Amino acid sequence: MVDEPSAPPAATGESRQRLRKLTRALEKVLPTEGLVTGPEARRVYECDGLSAYRRVPGLVALPSSVEEVVAVIDLCREHAVPVVTRGAGTGLSGGALPLEEGLLLSMTRMNRILELDPQRRIARVEPGVRNLAISEAAAPHGLYYAPDPSSQVACSIGGNVAENSGGVHCLKYGLTVHNLLGLELVTIEGERLRIGGEAPDSPGYDLLALLTGSEGLLGVVVGATVRLLPLPQEVAVLLAAFDSVEQAGAAVAGIIGSGLVPAGLEMMDELAIRAAEDYIHAGYPLAARAMLLCELDGTAAEVAEDTERVRALFEAHDALEVRVATDPAERARLWAGRKAAFPALGRIAPDYYCMDGTIPRHRLAEVLSAIGEMSRAYRLPVANVFHAGDGNLHPLIAYDANDPGQLARAEAFGESILKLCVAVGGTVTGEHGVGMEKLRPMCGQFSPAELEQFHAVRRAFDPQELLNPGKAVPTLARCAEWGGMHVHAGQLPFPELERF
Amino acid sequence: MVDEPSAPPAATGESRQRLRKLTRALEKVLPTEGLVTGPEARRVYECDGLSAYRRVPGLVALPSSVEEVVAVIDLCREHAVPVVTRGAGTGLSGGALPLEEGLLLSMTRMNRILELDPQRRIARVEPGVRNLAISEAAAPHGLYYAPDPSSQVACSIGGNVAENSGGVHCLKYGLTVHNLLGLELVTIEGERLRIGGEAPDSPGYDLLALLTGSEGLLGVVVGATVRLLPLPQEVAVLLAAFDSVEQAGAAVAGIIGSGLVPAGLEMMDELAIRAAEDYIHAGYPLAARAMLLCELDGTAAEVAEDTERVRALFEAHDALEVRVATDPAERARLWAGRKAAFPALGRIAPDYYCMDGTIPRHRLAEVLSAIGEMSRAYRLPVANVFHAGDGNLHPLIAYDANDPGQLARAEAFGESILKLCVAVGGTVTGEHGVGMEKLRPMCGQFSPAELEQFHAVRRAFDPQELLNPGKAVPTLARCAEWGGMHVHAGQLPFPELERF
Repeated sequence: MVDEPSAPPAATGESRQRLRKLTRALEKVLPTEGLVTGPEARRVYECDGLSAYRRVPGLVALPSSVEEVVAVIDLCREHAVPVVTRGAGTGLSGGALPLEEGLLLSMTRMNRILELDPQRRIARVEPGVRNLAISEAAAPHGLYYAPDPSSQVACSIGGNVAENSGGVHCLKYGLTVHNLLGLELVTIEGERLRIGGEAPDSPGYDLLALLTGSEGLLGVVVGATVRLLPLPQEVAVLLAAFDSVEQAGAAVAGIIGSGLVPAGLEMMDELAIRAAEDYIHAGYPLAARAMLLCELDGTAAEVAEDTERVRALFEAHDALEVRVATDPAERARLWAGRKAAFPALGRIAPDYYCMDGTIPRHRLAEVLSAIGEMSRAYRLPVANVFHAGDGNLHPLIAYDANDPGQLARAEAFGESILKLCVAVGGTVTGEHGVGMEKLRPMCGQFSPAELEQFHAVRRAFDPQELLNPGKAVPTLARCAEWGGMHVHAGQLPFPELERF
Repeated sequence: MVDEPSAPPAATGESRQRLRKLTRALEKVLPTEGLVTGPEARRVYECDGLSAYRRVPGLVALPSSVEEVVAVIDLCREHAVPVVTRGAGTGLSGGALPLEEGLLLSMTRMNRILELDPQRRIARVEPGVRNLAISEAAAPHGLYYAPDPSSQVACSIGGNVAENSGGVHCLKYGLTVHNLLGLELVTIEGERLRIGGEAPDSPGYDLLALLTGSEGLLGVVVGATVRLLPLPQEVAVLLAAFDSVEQAGAAVAGIIGSGLVPAGLEMMDELAIRAAEDYIHAGYPLAARAMLLCELDGTAAEVAEDTERVRALFEAHDALEVRVATDPAERARLWAGRKAAFPALGRIAPDYYCMDGTIPRHRLAEVLSAIGEMSRAYRLPVANVFHAGDGNLHPLIAYDANDPGQLARAEAFGESILKLCVAVGGTVTGEHGVGMEKLRPMCGQFSPAELEQFHAVRRAFDPQELLNPGKAVPTLARCAEWGGMHVHAGQLPFPELERF
C-alpha cells in the first residue's frame, strides 16, 4: 500500500498566497519559537510512523497554550488553510501526514501534567504529555495509567485519544476511551468545549466517545483528564506451547469462555517464535507451532487461584509445556521476546508488511488456518504476533521489496487478510487507525449509507472540512473509483474466501 | 417540575390534515393490528413513567419487522410528521411523551431474541425484548446480561439503549454502552445502518457510543447485539451501619480508593432506613444515621478475601455494626429493603419528588451535608437512597402536593440539588435521562457552544428534526428565556452554594 490512496492536492499559486498571508498573521500572535517556516526545519514533520508516505507541510505551528491554539485555529479558518494536528508522530497509519498547502499543528510544547490527584485517582494533562510520563508521575502514589501502546515511551496522550490506542493490557483494562474521563476541545470555530467529566455518565450525546478515535477530524484536543488505576499487588506470566495455532486458538477461547479476564493474552506462531528467540534468547520453545503468553494480575490470592485455573485450561487443551513466571526478571524475559517480535522479523526478512485487523475471537483458529493457506498461495512467509484475547491480529508478511513480484504479492496478500477479517465479522483496523493507509479497505467495511453518515457527523463539527482533510473516512467517489468492494459478513466476492 | 418545560405545538388544521394523509398511506403498508387510530386506544400511550406530563399521540404504529419500521419512517418523512419512539414506557424523564400532531412508534411487537450464542457470549435481540428476558434466556448457559435497571422486569432493551440505562451493578459491570456490541439503526432517511460489531474496536467514528443514550433523537434502534457475562460463582452482601452520612461517605471513598470494585455499593440515610424497615422488615439498624450495602462477587476465594478487606475498611471507618450475608435468602432480605425504598417513602409522605444527579465520588460527604442543610432551609424532609459507589444520587424530597407552598419549596429544593451537582463537577442526570424533565437544568450544565454542538450532531442524523423533537437538548432560545444559569464548577450564582 505504498501507492498513496488519496492524491495530495498540489500547492497552487492561490494556496501558496493564502499560506503567505497566514504566516504573516501568525507571526503577530505566536512567539518566534512557535512558528517553523524554513524548508529544512519543516522537513522534520514530513511523515509519522508510516514513513512510506511523505509530504513537507507548508507551515508548522507549535502552540504552548490553549489560547495560542485558539489563535492559530481562528486564523487558519479565516484564511481557509487546512490543519493537520500532530502528537509525537508515532502513528502507524499516516494520520499525521501533513499537507503541502496546509498548516501542521504540533502539540509537543503543550506537555505539562496540570494535576495529579491520588485521592480522585485522576490526572489532568496537556495533549503533548507522553503516555508513559503519566504512569511515571503516578507511580509514587501506587497508581498508573493503563493503556500501554508499544510506543508508550514516545507517544503522547493527544495522539492516543485521536487513535483510541490500546496495548497489551487493553483486554482487561480497555482502550483509551475506557480510561478517559474528560476532554477539552477547540473546534474549528475556535470554541472551547468541555466534554465528559469525572461523573460516571454525562447528559447529552456521548461526544467523549465520538471524539476518541476520530483521528483529528472533529477538533483539536487541548486537554485530557484520565483515570489512574492502583498498581496490581501481584503479577504472574504463563507461557504455554502448542502443536498448532488451532490448538492455541482453542485454548484462548477456553480461557475467555471460563470467565477469566487476563491482563494480557498474546499469541505468537512458529515463525514469530523462532525470529524472536534468535534475537532475544528469551527461552521460547522452538519445537512449538504456537505459543501463548498469559499475564494475570490482582491480589496474591487472586493471582494464585487464576494461575492454577489457566494452567489447568492449557493442559486440557493439550499444551506441550506450561511455564509460570512470577519473579520480575523472569516475567520481563518472557515479555522481551514478544515486544521485540517486529524488529526480530526485520532481521530475517528484507522487508515486512505489518497488518492490523480484528476478528471475533471465536473465529481465531479458522482465520489463522486460512492465513496459512494464503501464505502458501501467495508464496510469502507470514509471522503472526498478536493480541489473541482481543481478536486483534498483526500478521507480518515477509517479502523483498527489490523483487517487484514479491511486493505486488505482499500487497495482494495483505488486502486478502483484511477482506477475510471483514468477512468473518471483524474490522480492517484494530488499533493503528485508518489514517491514509486504510482508506481503501474502509470502502469494504462500510456501506455507502454508513460512510455518508460518518461524513455528516464530520460536517457537524467542521463543515468546511479544514481539519485533517482526506483522512480516516473515504469519500464515496473514491470508493467508486477503487471499485465497489463493500462486503457484509456472508457476502463474499472472493473465491478463496468462499467457505467463510 | 410539573410545568411542562417546552409547550407542545398545538395540533393545527394543517398538521391534522398531514396526519390524516399519513394514516391513509400507513393503512396500505401495515396490517390492521399494526396501527392504532381510535382516541381511546391511543390514550394508552399518553405518558411514560413520568406521568406528570401527558399528551395523546395523533397516531400509533406497532411495527413487527425492520421492513415495517422502514416503511413507517419513509412515510412519516414524506408527510413531514414527527415520530416519537417508545419502548416499554418505563422511562422516568418523559422521553417517550408523544406529540398530538405526531406518530408514536411503539416497538413492543418486535420482541424476539434472534440469536443467543453461549460460545461467543452474545445475544442478538429485537428492541422490544425485555431486559430481564435476556438474562432468563441466558441462565441455562450460566450467563446473564449485566445492566439491571430497577424496572428490568418490564423495560425493554431499545429503551435501555436510548437512555444508556444503569442499575445497582453498573459500578462493576458498566452502563448499557459498556455491555453493547452492535446496533442496527433505521435513520430518518429510511437507511439501515449496522453499527459496531463483535470485534473489540470499530473503525470510523464511534457511533455506537454516540447513539447509546441519545434518547431517540438520532434514529430508530431496530436491533441490538449485547454481551453476556458468566454468572458469578459466589456472592456476598455486607451491611454496615454508621453514625453519620459523612462517615459512610468516607467509607465509600476508602473502599473505592483501595482498588476494590464491588458489584454494587449503595447508601441509605436515616429516613430511608426507617421507611424501608417499617415497610419490609429487612432487619435494618434503626439506630444508624446511614447504612451501606456492599455486594461482592467472583470466585469463592476472591469473595472470601474481598469480604474481609471490606469488613476491615468498614471497621476502620468506625462502623457501628457490620453484617455479612452469603446465603441467598439473607442476601435477598437485605436487598429487598433497598429495592422497596421508593415505595416505602410513598407510605409515609403524601408525595415525593425523586431527583437524579451525579457528583464526583470524593465530594459525597460534603454534598450529603449540604443536602441536609437545604432540607432544614426548605423545611422539607429528604431521604437519600443511592448508588454511592458511582456517585449517582437519588434524593427523595417528601412534600404534600395539596399544600402549594410545599410544592413550590420542593421544586426549588430539587433545583438547588441539581445546581449543587453541577457546581461540584457532577451532572444533572445520572441514569434517568433528560427527556422533558431535565431540559432546564441542561442549560446550567452546558455552555451555549456545547449545546450548539449537540444540535449540530443531531442535524447530522435528522436535519428536519422529525425524531423526538423538543427532547433531551434544550434550544438556546429556551435557555435564554429561562434565564442564563450556565455554571461551570467554581462559578456559582447561588449564595447558599458559595462555599463549594
